[in-house]
Amino acid sequence: MNGMIRPVAKGAAGSVGSVETQRIDLPAPLPLDCGRELYPVRIAYETYGTLSSDRDNVILVCHALSGDAHAAGFSATPAGEGTRDGFRAEELDGDQRRSLGWWDGMIGPGKAFDTDRFFVVSSNLLGGCRGTTGPSSMNPATKRPYGADFPVITVSDMVRAQRAFLDALHLPRLFAVAGGSLGGMQALEWSVRYPDQVERIIPIASTHALHPQGLAWNAIARNAITADPDWQGGHYYDTGRAPSAGMGVARMVGHITYLSATSVNDKFGRRLQFADDIRYRLTDPEFEVESYLRHQADAFVKRFDANSYLYTSRALTYFDLARQYGGGRLADAVRNISARTLLIAFSSDWLYPPSGSKELADALRAAGTQVEVHVIDAPYGHDCFLLEEARQTPMIQEFLAR
Amino acid sequence: MNGMIRPVAKGAAGSVGSVETQRIDLPAPLPLDCGRELYPVRIAYETYGTLSSDRDNVILVCHALSGDAHAAGFSATPAGEGTRDGFRAEELDGDQRRSLGWWDGMIGPGKAFDTDRFFVVSSNLLGGCRGTTGPSSMNPATKRPYGADFPVITVSDMVRAQRAFLDALHLPRLFAVAGGSLGGMQALEWSVRYPDQVERIIPIASTHALHPQGLAWNAIARNAITADPDWQGGHYYDTGRAPSAGMGVARMVGHITYLSATSVNDKFGRRLQFADDIRYRLTDPEFEVESYLRHQADAFVKRFDANSYLYTSRALTYFDLARQYGGGRLADAVRNISARTLLIAFSSDWLYPPSGSKELADALRAAGTQVEVHVIDAPYGHDCFLLEEARQTPMIQEFLAR
Repeated sequence: MNGMIRPVAKGAAGSVGSVETQRIDLPAPLPLDCGRELYPVRIAYETYGTLSSDRDNVILVCHALSGDAHAAGFSATPAGEGTRDGFRAEELDGDQRRSLGWWDGMIGPGKAFDTDRFFVVSSNLLGGCRGTTGPSSMNPATKRPYGADFPVITVSDMVRAQRAFLDALHLPRLFAVAGGSLGGMQALEWSVRYPDQVERIIPIASTHALHPQGLAWNAIARNAITADPDWQGGHYYDTGRAPSAGMGVARMVGHITYLSATSVNDKFGRRLQFADDIRYRLTDPEFEVESYLRHQADAFVKRFDANSYLYTSRALTYFDLARQYGGGRLADAVRNISARTLLIAFSSDWLYPPSGSKELADALRAAGTQVEVHVIDAPYGHDCFLLEEARQTPMIQEFLAR
Repeated sequence: MNGMIRPVAKGAAGSVGSVETQRIDLPAPLPLDCGRELYPVRIAYETYGTLSSDRDNVILVCHALSGDAHAAGFSATPAGEGTRDGFRAEELDGDQRRSLGWWDGMIGPGKAFDTDRFFVVSSNLLGGCRGTTGPSSMNPATKRPYGADFPVITVSDMVRAQRAFLDALHLPRLFAVAGGSLGGMQALEWSVRYPDQVERIIPIASTHALHPQGLAWNAIARNAITADPDWQGGHYYDTGRAPSAGMGVARMVGHITYLSATSVNDKFGRRLQFADDIRYRLTDPEFEVESYLRHQADAFVKRFDANSYLYTSRALTYFDLARQYGGGRLADAVRNISARTLLIAFSSDWLYPPSGSKELADALRAAGTQVEVHVIDAPYGHDCFLLEEARQTPMIQEFLAR
């Protein structure tokens, strides 16, 4: 077994215990869709469970736009670095909040991705800001951070980097690739790009291309960042200023698209921040939901890099199986997929609505792929993929058991 | 007949013809909900049709967040000042686009608001930037524009200003008050505040309180403006800089909330800006919908004042009949309404969804008010109130004929 792969000590029942993010440098330049090459490339990753002697129990977990490699267990990451800043995080104590992986409810002994059986690998995506090479990394040509000189990347590039990273770990085949949102797009990309190397994919709250309103939300978020004069054309790292105000607005936009109108209503209603009455203030928060948005924005800018947001959002909008692999036709694009496919969607998810998952399932079925699609009736919007763990678990367990 | 009320010459069939925006100064200070008074107050307005000798045919039309007094006919307003910048405006020629009123399809001879029968009055709302006193007006205490020293206003204040303005025109009673979106809120406010002075109200794509997700969108838009350093705490008028970048982002957010996901898809799909392929650009528009958003933002910042946006958005979020008039209970709030009520909603409007109109209708019905609610099945989202004129017309004509 490769020395770099260290199964972590098991902690309390159901938990993978304490984990540390590891890093590995790819041995060769990474070719990109845009025609450029990237070198050096470092990948930050974590692993959970034990690799089988046949190396046939590997599950790759892919994170969403603002996630990182820390998917499960507790880490020693400093405060404010946690990625679990959705609904649930608020209910955790401070120590837990800052160290619990973003999909901890899904990865561990006896969980959906059962670490008693599987060796789960989670890496920070290319272009990220949490250990993997991205726009905040040093550009070897200038010895300064890339900034906006970082090449524009695609989901294909992200997956190509994952392939090279898994090669470096001597893991040629994947039992499954799973992820939610942008993570699900990576799973799909894997199934088309490396059809012989992945046996199963589980794209959750995700589909073959973001719908046009989603393109618009992403464009608005990116505009909020680039409109901030502190963005400075993307070269802000050495200036002591960063586009925090614009990033905050971008996060607010993103955050509301991850929730459903129902969940915003259930959580906040029109409750005033100060229960007595309105205070006739132009800029101070008057409603609880206004304070919440500010809090979300402030927390996010502390832990995430604006350029990584821009690059990742751009890649997410580009992703389009039909355009990339089918000359515009989804039916042609999915023809080479051989991986058994489990699609999970959520009734209240309006960013990746169930209709997209169903359209993809129809195309896969027509192409002869074994596919099943489940729509879970739940009110929390796109965030369901992080919150509705209990109902996803049996679907995933059964799918992986076959 | 008051000398200030000049029926305009009739133009082509169906059009009120050429109109000019007029202005009038209120004779006394205007008391506001926040406890302050405003003086002087100037109101910009237009009228269409002829006032009856009994002054019993007056219909007040109220505009939405970014509208103005120019509701019908052609004006000599310079280019770039038109308010009809939705779908339809793009289909008009340049000359028409810059001068056609925002509800021209609804107001005119034989139209929904028939100027052969009614005397239609349209005024720019308090806090606006199109002739009526607002944050860009001169503060008499400093001899400079108010900026953020302008008092925080409410929909009640807007309606109070309209009442004072109509008094100045010697128009004590209203045959009807009508409006879409924030304009519908003003109509509702009229019916509660002045129950003996308004016979009918027609709130369209509007309800008794914006739902919490709508609060969030408005907060995000306001944050985009105030996060722009060129906003300068609201005192930017004399500086040669204005928060155009932030306003652009605010408009993008607003614009997408006015459309439905279906209409964005039908209009743009995922079509690329340059048909050949993606170009691997981080900030340049790659998709048509991205270019469209920029265009909308650029057009809007040329014609609208950022502080007016902030104040009007704040008033819109405050509006809540139950809180204002019912101690939190809608049933109690609507008890004094005597105006016959016509509510129109649109199936695809997710900013003011039909469920809100139905909830209001139920409350009105329970209070013994004559109310009817129509939900028009149409795909254009909130913008339907500007676009679905043909189907609204018979409903309104019949309602006004009774």
